[in-house]
Amino acid sequence: MNKNKYLKELFELLEIPTISAQKNHDPDIKKACIWLKNKLEKLDFAVDIIPTNGHPVVYAENLKTKGKPTILIYGHYDVQSPDPLSEWDSDPFKPEVRSGNIYARGVADDKGQFYTWIAAIDELLQSNKSLPVNIKILLEGEEEVGSKNLDDFVENNTSLLKADVCVISDSHSLSENTPLLTYGLKGLTYMELKVKTLARDAHSGLYGGNVLNPAIVLTQIINKLKDENHKILIPGFYEKVRKLDEKERASLNEFPFGEDEIKKETGALTVSGEEDFSVVERAGARPTLDVNGIWSGYTGEGPKTIIPAEASAKISMRLVPYQNDQDIADKFERFVKQITPKGVEVQITRLSGGLPIIMNKNSSYYKAAESAMEKTFGNKPLYELSGGSIPVTATLKNLLGIDTILMGYGLPDDGLHAPNEKMSISMFEKGIATNMEFLQLAGKIKP
Amino acid sequence: MNKNKYLKELFELLEIPTISAQKNHDPDIKKACIWLKNKLEKLDFAVDIIPTNGHPVVYAENLKTKGKPTILIYGHYDVQSPDPLSEWDSDPFKPEVRSGNIYARGVADDKGQFYTWIAAIDELLQSNKSLPVNIKILLEGEEEVGSKNLDDFVENNTSLLKADVCVISDSHSLSENTPLLTYGLKGLTYMELKVKTLARDAHSGLYGGNVLNPAIVLTQIINKLKDENHKILIPGFYEKVRKLDEKERASLNEFPFGEDEIKKETGALTVSGEEDFSVVERAGARPTLDVNGIWSGYTGEGPKTIIPAEASAKISMRLVPYQNDQDIADKFERFVKQITPKGVEVQITRLSGGLPIIMNKNSSYYKAAESAMEKTFGNKPLYELSGGSIPVTATLKNLLGIDTILMGYGLPDDGLHAPNEKMSISMFEKGIATNMEFLQLAGKIKP
Repeated sequence: MNKNKYLKELFELLEIPTISAQKNHDPDIKKACIWLKNKLEKLDFAVDIIPTNGHPVVYAENLKTKGKPTILIYGHYDVQSPDPLSEWDSDPFKPEVRSGNIYARGVADDKGQFYTWIAAIDELLQSNKSLPVNIKILLEGEEEVGSKNLDDFVENNTSLLKADVCVISDSHSLSENTPLLTYGLKGLTYMELKVKTLARDAHSGLYGGNVLNPAIVLTQIINKLKDENHKILIPGFYEKVRKLDEKERASLNEFPFGEDEIKKETGALTVSGEEDFSVVERAGARPTLDVNGIWSGYTGEGPKTIIPAEASAKISMRLVPYQNDQDIADKFERFVKQITPKGVEVQITRLSGGLPIIMNKNSSYYKAAESAMEKTFGNKPLYELSGGSIPVTATLKNLLGIDTILMGYGLPDDGLHAPNEKMSISMFEKGIATNMEFLQLAGKIKP
Repeated sequence: MNKNKYLKELFELLEIPTISAQKNHDPDIKKACIWLKNKLEKLDFAVDIIPTNGHPVVYAENLKTKGKPTILIYGHYDVQSPDPLSEWDSDPFKPEVRSGNIYARGVADDKGQFYTWIAAIDELLQSNKSLPVNIKILLEGEEEVGSKNLDDFVENNTSLLKADVCVISDSHSLSENTPLLTYGLKGLTYMELKVKTLARDAHSGLYGGNVLNPAIVLTQIINKLKDENHKILIPGFYEKVRKLDEKERASLNEFPFGEDEIKKETGALTVSGEEDFSVVERAGARPTLDVNGIWSGYTGEGPKTIIPAEASAKISMRLVPYQNDQDIADKFERFVKQITPKGVEVQITRLSGGLPIIMNKNSSYYKAAESAMEKTFGNKPLYELSGGSIPVTATLKNLLGIDTILMGYGLPDDGLHAPNEKMSISMFEKGIATNMEFLQLAGKIKP
């Protein structure tokens, strides 16, 4: 493997500060797009830099392998701001190698990771002159600012993007030796509630005992949403929840995530949740409800004897297949209106939403990914259902009808979004090797 | 009555900007003390300006009426800041008369009101050469900043302040024709709660369902403090609550304070409280519990998917005789600890407290006040139990064992603490006349 060539190329890409949140970096965004176009054209890809309402998408395709499957590779070329700069041990946009790691902004998130695919393609072309599969590459420039224009782009280009499966390297494995396959992600329904009982704050001595306190009403509403055994009480909330069979439970529970990990990572004094489910099951396969914020009345120092006029809360639910975020938002809204006492004005706002997704981990492509990982890492991957959300996976499932395989080559301590972001060079190499193996195995699958 | 002389003197006092909260007005505080000392010495009072840890107390006595009761008159010479100045129609420290009202900062709160007593004494001395009772006057300079040093002053001077009854004019009557006697005030126990479940905010996707959400735990605790029928659930909370007999209920319910007044004054959409009590009874004779503030997590715009590490609330209880604020704080603390789930750190802070007080409205001094009011106003006063708190009344009851009669000559729309504070000149005159009558009637009571 021509490792040094790929590292040199990656370093060139890392040197372009593609900070998508900062307007003054728009020329860098453009520069990176052109750099990627040139590189991919050298690999015999047809490449377009396609404008969106935000930053452009780089789309490339090499579809010369008739009769073989088409693999869609997703990545993002934009990066987070490196602030605070003073905490970096080296310039975030001058990649430096220390103790086997590359230090640079965006190296793990996501330039170094998606580059494992470009390097794998390059390597395959050098040895075989042709690719084992057809390949489409979609590189966006707005992942770090919420992928605002990606859904529209996919919706407007469904035939362009048509493929048999999507692969994304933008996550991490468990360790240098333990790869991970995330085959499900949660969805989200995020609501804001405001309850109002008075026109203005009132004197608690003169009006206490006679008017409804909106902060208390809000606590009553919240208490009716979830009971103390962690059961969510919104009617119909669990109706569509996917059930786990014993085999899947056993597989999930191999994942080393338990009370100790949670306590270490969050400083939680106690770990508790639905009694009939393990920690891993609750995290990945059970829907949850949390208050993300609450505010009302006087929050400064010392006492102030008012009854607040209104009280607000941000309440979000993480959803699992086959719940639907809009349906859950409807049910939430209907129930909150029903339990709000008379004489209370309630305002309900939907702040964001997204569908949960589950992939078919028994598909041939998953099996190919598993074999490729096992060959490179020396261990079979662990299968995980994640509590997080990667909205593009749900978009691809909904609009293109395809599964996504998340093949992460980061490590848990890479420091994404933080100073001194790094990527292990050996993980970079393992990524390239795994991807080559995967593409070759995929070439044997009947599309 | 030499009205113009008293108005002229009052205007001099109003011109001194005795803003107790602002250090740069310390010279004005001193100037007002000297002004009061000079005036009271002219009335044959022995006067001391007594330093405290904050602003001085002006103490004056004229005890030459052997064998007669001693009346303690309390007032405060300090005022609120006049900000925002731009909203005043005339200079707050250049009193101006418009449509029968004096406009000036502090005229109703409390310079004009306590001056009705000084004018009454002046008037009595001019016609009789001697006073019908012994009089002690206590004028403090820190009422607008919480009377921080008054309790200590009273405690250190119990024999100096010994009296048969205290009178305070620092409240309002119901209208120009309807005087009011407030014979009870609520006490206060004001607590702050902080519950903590995590060392730092956590990702709601990765940890939701496995860790306790402190905002939800806080709502559970608050819901166990008071039920939806407005009953407070802290064990022993109602144990010492004074019961009303039918006669007192009837008298209280003459007071025109009902659903309409509350809706008008607060903009409440509904009025509701303990079912077995009227609006007036709830306001004056029933203890209450309110959340004055609550905060946790993300409270900015849009969604943020965190589980907060901690959540806080300010919770206060208004108390009625014979509840004790310390005892209620103890009970609150014990109960909250008991209902806080395992694995939750709870921190309970006492922010302030004060005893409730009830006066003997059948005492000879109350009867004297009632007769004096009836003579001047043409109507008997209404008797009220107030939901508010005037801490000095409880201090005097506890340390000197005496009742306080609240004889208010303000009007509900005087705009205390607001721009364009005013006092009606006819109420000023009625105050002087009522006080003269009261002092003469009190002179007939056997001490």
